[in-house]
Order: sequence, then C-alpha cells, then structure tokens
Amino acid sequence: MSQTAKVAVMGVSGYAGMELARLLLHHPAFREHAPLFLGRAGSTPEPLVNLHPHLLDNNGSRNLRVEPLDWRRLQDEGVQVLLLATPHEQSRAMVPEALARGIRVVDLSGAWRLQAVENRAVYAFEDEGSATAQAVQAKAVYGMPELHREEIPSAEIVANPGCYATSVILALKPLAQAGWLDLNRGIVSDSKSGVSGAGKAPTAKTHFMYAADNLSAYGLFGHRHTGELLEQLQLTREQIVFTPHLLPIPRGILSTIYVHFTEPREAEEVESCYRAFFAASPMVRIYGAGQLPQIQYSVRTSYCDIGFQLDQGGRRCIIVSCLDNLLKGAASQAVQNLNLMCGWKEAEGLK
Amino acid sequence: MSQTAKVAVMGVSGYAGMELARLLLHHPAFREHAPLFLGRAGSTPEPLVNLHPHLLDNNGSRNLRVEPLDWRRLQDEGVQVLLLATPHEQSRAMVPEALARGIRVVDLSGAWRLQAVENRAVYAFEDEGSATAQAVQAKAVYGMPELHREEIPSAEIVANPGCYATSVILALKPLAQAGWLDLNRGIVSDSKSGVSGAGKAPTAKTHFMYAADNLSAYGLFGHRHTGELLEQLQLTREQIVFTPHLLPIPRGILSTIYVHFTEPREAEEVESCYRAFFAASPMVRIYGAGQLPQIQYSVRTSYCDIGFQLDQGGRRCIIVSCLDNLLKGAASQAVQNLNLMCGWKEAEGLK
Amino acid sequence: MSQTAKVAVMGVSGYAGMELARLLLHHPAFREHAPLFLGRAGSTPEPLVNLHPHLLDNNGSRNLRVEPLDWRRLQDEGVQVLLLATPHEQSRAMVPEALARGIRVVDLSGAWRLQAVENRAVYAFEDEGSATAQAVQAKAVYGMPELHREEIPSAEIVANPGCYATSVILALKPLAQAGWLDLNRGIVSDSKSGVSGAGKAPTAKTHFMYAADNLSAYGLFGHRHTGELLEQLQLTREQIVFTPHLLPIPRGILSTIYVHFTEPREAEEVESCYRAFFAASPMVRIYGAGQLPQIQYSVRTSYCDIGFQLDQGGRRCIIVSCLDNLLKGAASQAVQNLNLMCGWKEAEGLK
Amino acid sequence: MSQTAKVAVMGVSGYAGMELARLLLHHPAFREHAPLFLGRAGSTPEPLVNLHPHLLDNNGSRNLRVEPLDWRRLQDEGVQVLLLATPHEQSRAMVPEALARGIRVVDLSGAWRLQAVENRAVYAFEDEGSATAQAVQAKAVYGMPELHREEIPSAEIVANPGCYATSVILALKPLAQAGWLDLNRGIVSDSKSGVSGAGKAPTAKTHFMYAADNLSAYGLFGHRHTGELLEQLQLTREQIVFTPHLLPIPRGILSTIYVHFTEPREAEEVESCYRAFFAASPMVRIYGAGQLPQIQYSVRTSYCDIGFQLDQGGRRCIIVSCLDNLLKGAASQAVQNLNLMCGWKEAEGLK
Repeated sequence: MSQTAKVAVMGVSGYAGMELARLLLHHPAFREHAPLFLGRAGSTPEPLVNLHPHLLDNNGSRNLRVEPLDWRRLQDEGVQVLLLATPHEQSRAMVPEALARGIRVVDLSGAWRLQAVENRAVYAFEDEGSATAQAVQAKAVYGMPELHREEIPSAEIVANPGCYATSVILALKPLAQAGWLDLNRGIVSDSKSGVSGAGKAPTAKTHFMYAADNLSAYGLFGHRHTGELLEQLQLTREQIVFTPHLLPIPRGILSTIYVHFTEPREAEEVESCYRAFFAASPMVRIYGAGQLPQIQYSVRTSYCDIGFQLDQGGRRCIIVSCLDNLLKGAASQAVQNLNLMCGWKEAEGLK
Repeated sequence: MSQTAKVAVMGVSGYAGMELARLLLHHPAFREHAPLFLGRAGSTPEPLVNLHPHLLDNNGSRNLRVEPLDWRRLQDEGVQVLLLATPHEQSRAMVPEALARGIRVVDLSGAWRLQAVENRAVYAFEDEGSATAQAVQAKAVYGMPELHREEIPSAEIVANPGCYATSVILALKPLAQAGWLDLNRGIVSDSKSGVSGAGKAPTAKTHFMYAADNLSAYGLFGHRHTGELLEQLQLTREQIVFTPHLLPIPRGILSTIYVHFTEPREAEEVESCYRAFFAASPMVRIYGAGQLPQIQYSVRTSYCDIGFQLDQGGRRCIIVSCLDNLLKGAASQAVQNLNLMCGWKEAEGLK
Repeated sequence: MSQTAKVAVMGVSGYAGMELARLLLHHPAFREHAPLFLGRAGSTPEPLVNLHPHLLDNNGSRNLRVEPLDWRRLQDEGVQVLLLATPHEQSRAMVPEALARGIRVVDLSGAWRLQAVENRAVYAFEDEGSATAQAVQAKAVYGMPELHREEIPSAEIVANPGCYATSVILALKPLAQAGWLDLNRGIVSDSKSGVSGAGKAPTAKTHFMYAADNLSAYGLFGHRHTGELLEQLQLTREQIVFTPHLLPIPRGILSTIYVHFTEPREAEEVESCYRAFFAASPMVRIYGAGQLPQIQYSVRTSYCDIGFQLDQGGRRCIIVSCLDNLLKGAASQAVQNLNLMCGWKEAEGLK
Repeated sequence: MSQTAKVAVMGVSGYAGMELARLLLHHPAFREHAPLFLGRAGSTPEPLVNLHPHLLDNNGSRNLRVEPLDWRRLQDEGVQVLLLATPHEQSRAMVPEALARGIRVVDLSGAWRLQAVENRAVYAFEDEGSATAQAVQAKAVYGMPELHREEIPSAEIVANPGCYATSVILALKPLAQAGWLDLNRGIVSDSKSGVSGAGKAPTAKTHFMYAADNLSAYGLFGHRHTGELLEQLQLTREQIVFTPHLLPIPRGILSTIYVHFTEPREAEEVESCYRAFFAASPMVRIYGAGQLPQIQYSVRTSYCDIGFQLDQGGRRCIIVSCLDNLLKGAASQAVQNLNLMCGWKEAEGLK
C-alpha cells in the first residue's frame, strides 16, 4: 500500500476545514507533497496563510495556495480522495460529480449521514427525490471507524459523523450492543458544546456578547444529529432524548448520558464492556472507576474520552464523554477515515 | 407592621454574604439604619469596604464596619433577626445560641435544611445526635417562599435553600403537585453552575486555569442538595437523578430537567399549571411557549426563570430553569424570607 | 424645577441604548411616566421586552413599546429632550431637525463631539461643509460634566463623550490643568476595552472565536477618540499616543496612562490634586496610595475610578483609570447630562 | 554530535514544567529514551500521567514516572543536562550542586538571570553574599538564543529568560542595537499576560472569580523582570517603564511597546532592521507592514511574533510582540537552549 496519496481538500476557510488542513500538513503521508486546497469554482487563488495566519510556519518552504475547484484538473492530477468541509447543500451537489469521476470522498457535512428518509427530513434536501442522490446515499458509509472499520477501507463515499453524534454514539454503542440498556426507561443525553460548533459565520448567537458568561439550551426534541443516534444505535425517537447546549468556550463537547440497565451491573463489568468494545480503537480513551473526563483533557486532542459512574444499586448509570468538536468530532475523524481508505494506520498523523 | 427591623448579618466576606450585604444596603427598610455586619468573635473590626471595594459608594456617609460577634451586644441592641452566610458547621453551632437568646435566624448554609437523618448523613454533622440540634431542626422551616409562604412569617429558624435545589424544586413542584409526573420513568436534572457556587476559598478547582475553557461533572449520585429535592418534592432516591457541572462563568445556574407525564399534555396546559402555581410569587418568571430562559437573562436578577418544551406526543417534557446562584439561589431568597418574617412585601428591595 | 420631564430615547436596540433604557426605567423622574422609546421612522412598533428580555420585570405593568419616529408626534407630546443612541451618520441627520423643532438633544454618538475640522476628518461626515451642520456644531457642548458642568444645563445639544476618551480625559485633566505635565516627554495611553465597545452587529471581530482567549491592538495612531483627547486636554497630536485593545470580556475599560512631571511630586500632592479637581463630581472615585482600580470594581457601576503610582523619583507617574464603557462611558454619562439639563441632581438615578 | 542525550527534568508539576515534559516527549532526540522526571528528594514516585491526565497517550508504552531526586543516581546514569522548572529558591540551592557534579543546567527560574546585584535585590536571595553563588552567577549565560547564540553551546549554566522579558527584549533589541532609539524620550512597555503566568498555586488572584471578566495592573515600577530588560538592552531604570497586567485568559502575552526614534524612519527600513537581526532565528516571526500579531496566533506555538506601526512622522513607533508565556516564554525557549547545548538544530522539536 502506497505511503502517500493524491488528496484534495475543499472548505478550509471554516473551523473544521482549518483543523483538517493543519492535521494534513503534519501528516507523514503529506511530507513531500501537500494536499491540494480548493476554493469555490471561479474563486480567486489565494495563499492559505491569508485564511489562517497561525499556519504561517507550515507555509515556509511550500507557499501553499487555495485554488478554485476545477474538476478536470482534479482528474488530470489523479486526485484519489476529496475531503469536503463544505456546507451540506454544497456536499449534496459535489459528491455525485466526484464519484462519477472516480474520486472517492470523505464528506464532513450532514449531507450523506442518514439512510432513513424521515431522519433526513430536518435537512430538507432539494434533491431528496433524485435517483442520483439515492444511489449515492445507498453507497454512503457512516464514517465512525469504531463502528464501521470493515466497510470504510473500500467505501466510495464516507459520511463523517456529526460532532455531538460522535460523543453520544461512542458512549452508548458498547452498552447497546451488549443488550444491557433498559430502553423502556429511556435514555437522556444532555450535551454541551463550545461556540466553534456554531460555525464561523458571525451571527447573533456567535457574538461574544451573547455567548460569553452564558449557557443556553437549543434544538429541544429536534436537533439534526438525533437521526444519527437513532440509526447507529438502532433506537426509536421515543427511546432517547438529546439536548444540545451552547457553552461559553471556544471548543469541546461534553455529553452527560443517563441510562438504566435491565439488571444490576458492577463497575468492573461496565469498564470491561467498554475496554473490550474499543480494544482495537486507538482514538478512544476509557477512564477507570472514580475518574471522569473533562473538556480540558480532550480539547486539542483527537480522542474521545469516556468515563462513567454507577448508582449504588447498579441499575442506573451516568456516562460522561468528551471530545474536541473540531477534531474527533470532525477533522481528526475524517483523517481516521482517510487513513483507512488509503490503507494506512488508523491513528496516523493524529497523536 | 414596622417598616424597619434590627438585623445583623454574619459571613459577609463570602460571595453570598457579599450579595446579601449589597441587597440590604439598598433595601428600603435599612435606609436610615444599616444592618450590623459581624465577623467571628474576637476578630479585629474592619471597614466593610476593605472586604468589597465595589461597595465603596454605599459606604460614603455611613462608614460601615464589620464588628466581631458578641452575643450580649446583639441582645442589648435588640437584634431581631440574624442572617447567617456562614459555613454549615458554624451555623450548626450558632443557631441554637441565637434561638436561646430570642433572636430569629435565616441561615443560608445547609445546616438545617433537611429533616430526614439519612438525607443529612452527607454532611456528617458532629452534633447530629444532640437533643438541642434536634429541637432546632424540628422548628426549621425550609425557606422557599413559593412553597412555604404560610410558615415563614412566624418561623424562628428559616433554612435558606441550596442554589441548585432552588432551580430544580421550583421547576418541578407545580408538575409534581398536579400529579402529572410519571415517577416510574424517573426524573433527570442535569444542572450547571458558575464558579462562585464553589466558594471563595482558592482551591485547585476554583483556579482560573482549571475552570476556564472547561466543563466538568461532579458529585454524581451523591451531591448534598439531593436531599432537598427528595424532601420538598416527596421523591425517593430512585425517582430522580441530579448531576451538577462546573461552568466556566462567574455566576448563574441552568438546570435542564427531563420528565415524563402520566398522560399527554398540551403546551397551554403546562404553561397554565406553572402560572397558577406561581400566581402569588413575585420572584418567579414563566416563559411562554417557544421561549427558553438563558443564564444571561437571570444573572444579576433575583428571579428564577422557568420555561419548557413538550415533545410532539405531549408525554415527554424538558424544563429549563435559570437563576443567579448568589441571588435567588442564596442572598435574594434570604431577603424574601426576611421580608416575610418582618411582615414586609416579599419582593421588597429585590426589583 | 420640575421633577419630571418629557423625554424620548432612540436607538435602544444597541448596547448603550439598552443600558440607557434600563437606567431611565429606574430613574426617579420617570416613575410615573416612562420615556418614549423610538425606532426608525416607518418601523413596526414592538414591545421593548422583545429587544431585551431581561427588562421583562420593568415592563410588567407598563407594557412599554418601541414606536416609530414621528417628529410631529414628538412635538405634539411636548418632548423636551431627545436622547440619541444612534450611529453617528443618523445623529448627524437627526440633530438639526430636533433643534429646529425646539427639542434639546443628548447625542451618544461621535457626530458632534469635535470642534476642529481636522479632528473630524476621520469620520468623513457627508454634511461636513453644510452651514446647518456648522451651526449645530458651534452650539454643541462636550458632555463631560466634570469638565463642562457650567455649560451643560443650558445647552441645546450635548455631545456625549466617547468611552475611551472619558477614561483618558478624566485621568489626565487634573494634572494637565495643574500644569504639571512635561509635554515634551509625551503621554502614552494604553487602553483596553471589552467587546461591547465594538457594537452589537455580528462581525468577524465580535465573533466569540475571535475575541475569546485573545488580545489584539487596533487603530494605532488613528483611533477616532484621539481628537477628543486633543481638544479636551489641549494637546497636539505629537504630545499623546493612544492605543486601544480588544479585551476578551463583555464590558469595561482600563486605561494605563504614562506621564512625566516637569518637577518631582509626592504621592499626597498628586492625590490632593485629583481630589480637589473632582470635589464636586459624584461619579468619579479616587483611589488612595497603594491601591489601583480594576475593571471588576467599576463594571456595572456609573463611576470612573482613578488611581496612580509614582516612580521613586517623583517625576514619572502611571495613572490607571477604569469605567464601564456602556455606563460612565455612555449611558450613565448621558443621564448625568440629562439630569443637569433638567435641573436635577447630577447623580440622580445613578447610584 | 550525538542525536540523543541523557537529560533530567525537575518541576514538572507546574505549568512550565508540564509544557517542558510535553515538548521533550515529542522531541526527536527522546524517541527511544525519555528524559528522567524528578520530584523533590524523598518524595514518593508517581506516574507522570497522574500529574497531567492529558499526557496519557504519550505514556502508553512507556509508563513514565516522576522519581525523587537522587544526585548520586543522576551521576551514575550519566545525566548530562538538568532542566529545572523549579521555584527560584530551589534553583539557587540546586544549581551549585549540579555544576559541582559536572551536570550542565538550564534553569527556568529567575535565580541566575541577573548579573547586577542591584537588579537581583528584588529577589532577596538568601545566599546573595556567598562565594559559591557568585561563582555560579559569573558562569551563567542568559538563555535567549537570539542574543546569545554563540555562548549557549558551551555554557555550564543557562538562565532561561522571564516570559515578559522575552516579549520585550526581542521586540526592542534590533532597534536598540541599531542605535535608533531616542532614550531621552523613554520607552514604555505595557504588557499583558494570561493567568498561567501567575503559577499553579491557588491564590486569591488566580481564583476564577478574581481573574475572569477582569483586567488589573500590578507591579508598577517594580516587577522582577525589569532587571532583565535593563541588562539585556543596556538601559537605565529611567529609560524604560514596564507595566504588567493580568488578562482573563489562560495563556499568552502581548506587549505594546512605545518608542521614539532619533530620526525619522520608513516602515520598510524598520521591517528590514527586524528581518536582518532575526535572519538566523527560527523562533521569531516578523509581521509585515499593516499587520499586527495577536495573542490568538502565537498561543500554543513556540514563536515570538513581532509587528509594528510607525507614526506618520516616522519618529514614533509602536511595537507589538506576542508569545505564549509557557512556550517561547518558558519551555520552548528552554528546549532551544537544550538543543544548542547538545549541538542539535535550534528549532528541533519545536515546530
């Protein structure tokens, strides 16, 4: 398997795209040849450093530029994988084109994550009924290596998971798969995210004066990432409640998840369940009994950190999971997927 | 009813005591004669402004001082009500003494809030077995005017509620009293508080470097305020989970509370239930449908703000309640209690 | 002198206007009759509370609304003073109209603060050459009561000072007027402001991700408030440097000001100079030797706090001044001016 | 020159020591053999990860421990360089011992930075008069590679500069050495630092409630780092004022520095002066005209960023310099020094 690959990245002006650029510029596979950085078709080429001054040092000898998208050129240059950190509407339009030209895709948006029409309804995709879109969707693999490590290496299109969804699914999947959860009692995921999750566009809610010294809940019973939880954990809408909150910090997600077990469990048993499930997963860290993850320990890392606390009776359990929404919740997970698609080590360039 | 009273305050060096001092200095009843401010017996008298530079302006003509506690002097000066913003061990020691001398007390600590021995166990009070303490406890009224408005005016000792407990009990009591809650399904209160809730002592957890840009959960299945929820809402430990978190902000609490109803409800019905319950309560604000409270709107006010969102089916409901942990969660609630004990308007000095 | 007045306020949607509304709603003169709140001509009337949920309680019995500007109605209702918290272009257009209709104005923008054409150049006013504008400008009194207390009561148009300018001018005027400053050595004012100073419009620089965990300098050698320093302190551009910085906090300004004295001074002498100058000024607080103001102590107050430190030799002095940019730097200073114009106590409604 | 070295690090529990540990664990020279991590003599050995959970991943296969200091063992194991991130009193005691045993030292404290007795007075070292201490001091090289690159490789003891001092000296040295500064007019450095600069001990000033939403000046005319400015820039105390401020952010320093030139300069000239001076310095980045550094761009990097703005007349200049106080202001600069002492590339392990 080749130790490099021809890769292009689109959407580097946003926060996730910025982190993706940074990770790839430090990735061993791109030491000799940097990825191509793409802007919208017809846009004016500009130095990457203009978008992100702190990438200055990487630019030293390489003078990297963001060039306008040109499909023919991508093919001529033999681009094998296209990473999209674009809005979901743009990803809906671009992915069919890329696949038609034989270019594989990792898409960081919500465009292709959901198989069930009713779960996609919240996005109101304009091309929902089109046969092309349905064909692409049928090929799309949900890009969470811890769950779909077998399918990703050969996937044409990998739909990189949502940041909140990653923190909840990784925390619940081991228990769900073990069949321990009492779904009649329902699951609650109370999740909190830093402001970068709201995107780079200046809005009333991303204004410093709104977010600072504040906490607010939003999207109650209706956040877009809910569909990912349902599909990946095989739950019904009645079995789980997911509530996001906006934290006054730049980055990081903490999910506090409340479950009931069908029968009492010991802490060692729960810890073993997690360790067994993630034995082959380099980007998940399990905390031992008496320890809980915090945002400060996972932020600026590519890990998802998971800890838990059992009630005395052993039937109620609170799981706390933390990750950096721009890294394991976006760019680092995309690199995991890229690594698997290229036959490299899953954690390459992420530690 | 007299429009002033002889009042003393102890513990003004802490955050809650500081706010209590500030509120009382602006309270109409104390325009002519400021309350007495007390330090520990034997301490050196010092200007109040030394403790809190921002109270400078109130001090102008009055030159207020913090004087050492002297029980005889309190009696000689005819002090009627003593407000304690002291640690709970200190309140356990002082309250019997005050009552014995005919001085009524509003105690802001956790010393006298809990009637059930098993709920008090978490405090490990040294005088747990003493007959004196039991006699005081039997007289203690839980100082939440919205629930105990009838008993507070004549109480000798009022136990001012915990900050987290206030945000949860006010949000749940109307629904609990209406009998709407499906307690078999359990209640989850995921609560978040600013750093002032952790007290003024510099510790590893109140260090800026620990709290800033971070979020952490703590006290899982074991926080001290849980007993207050159980007693005031008449719940068993199996029926509610309460999880506090440390927010990177100076002040404010937001509780996100998840309940199930025994039968489907309409939003209007839920709003009416809240409005009816709090009709006579000036310090609670109910948000209408489609609106949720945020920390930024309740901080630096004496209100508890409550909003909710119903699931489509009308059986699942999320309640969001916000307050300022130092005000409605401490000092303002103490002033409500003082007002009731003195026969004044409940909201006097709080708007 | 009447204890109320007919007052209208325009621009309450911004931060300074919001604080102005809050102050006026608590001002004794407006207990019976609230001010009129105005939006742009032709705008749809809306409840004040929609703009600022935390004003909810003030609204209770009064149901205040923001009504579209209608000059005829202002005259019919006998409005005496119009307070403008509008952008400077809008203030340039409105003030001549108001004066022509016999309505006095306090303008919080930069529209009328500067008498010298060259100092105004940075604003590039479209009506710079017009005779009407020049006539208005000739009447404008710079609304800093500590400097112009004699002229404000009878002024038709009061130009409320800039927030940065207030912090620098108040700190320097006593020393400048005493003739102590060695202007050949130059003055440096290194000033820092919270994000509310950048306005409510969501921009790249007010985005939480830009401002949080950051500090940046801007407007070097060219900030708009420089002209105010020159005119009020009678300095040339070569004699002072003023550099603003954007702090990652919601509100507050701290200016660190470096001066040389022409001859050595004692600390007592300097403190006396300040105390004498501000003897009749209720909104300035002087810190004694060994104490320096901090943003935390002036924020959410209407004061400007001033302290200083002398070098051993007594010739170099650092002055530190703090204020809340939305209060003493804007709304509270406007209320001081309104009070003086109406013949009320200067500090009415501000303590 | 060998590509590895036997290195020990003491004081990894503090913030600078933590960053030093992190940098060394990623440094190419220590891929095979990690440095030794030392605690106080007699302390109990403990896993490094206990001190810093986020170093967890580096620990995987290596199980690093913090072992108590044992001089004999250091010699037996052939330790060549000892890095001290200890308090200055401890460094004063340890360095003579290390040198006597033939172990070279990089000391991150203020213990050995100052050659002039009067500049050291502020530290009040207990061993000030001792001949041993004087002998060590005479050998100490000020560890700023950009100024002392020739002496560091052979130094026995390298005194790593203060964080504030680094930001000021690097910004001023090129202009000072060029002889452009009008020292009669004086230099002002108004510097601002994040809270990590105040150390890990919980104190009243590092409490979240003190630092958050605040800005305060401290150490006026008397901060410890002033002596470093005087010695490295060859200035007298009358020629420079340095004022530190405490910013409400975890890390980062920005210094705004005001100078006068003896004759007018062009921007290109100034930029060239900087570029020439730092031509061989990989850890300094010069910003071009019209661009200024900000804390957000230098934080979490090992760079010192420098930009400037000239007044129209070309005689007044404001220099803005930024760095991460824990990195270029401490740990990264120590690694630069270690690299030079070991004959490695200066920037090894820092990009």
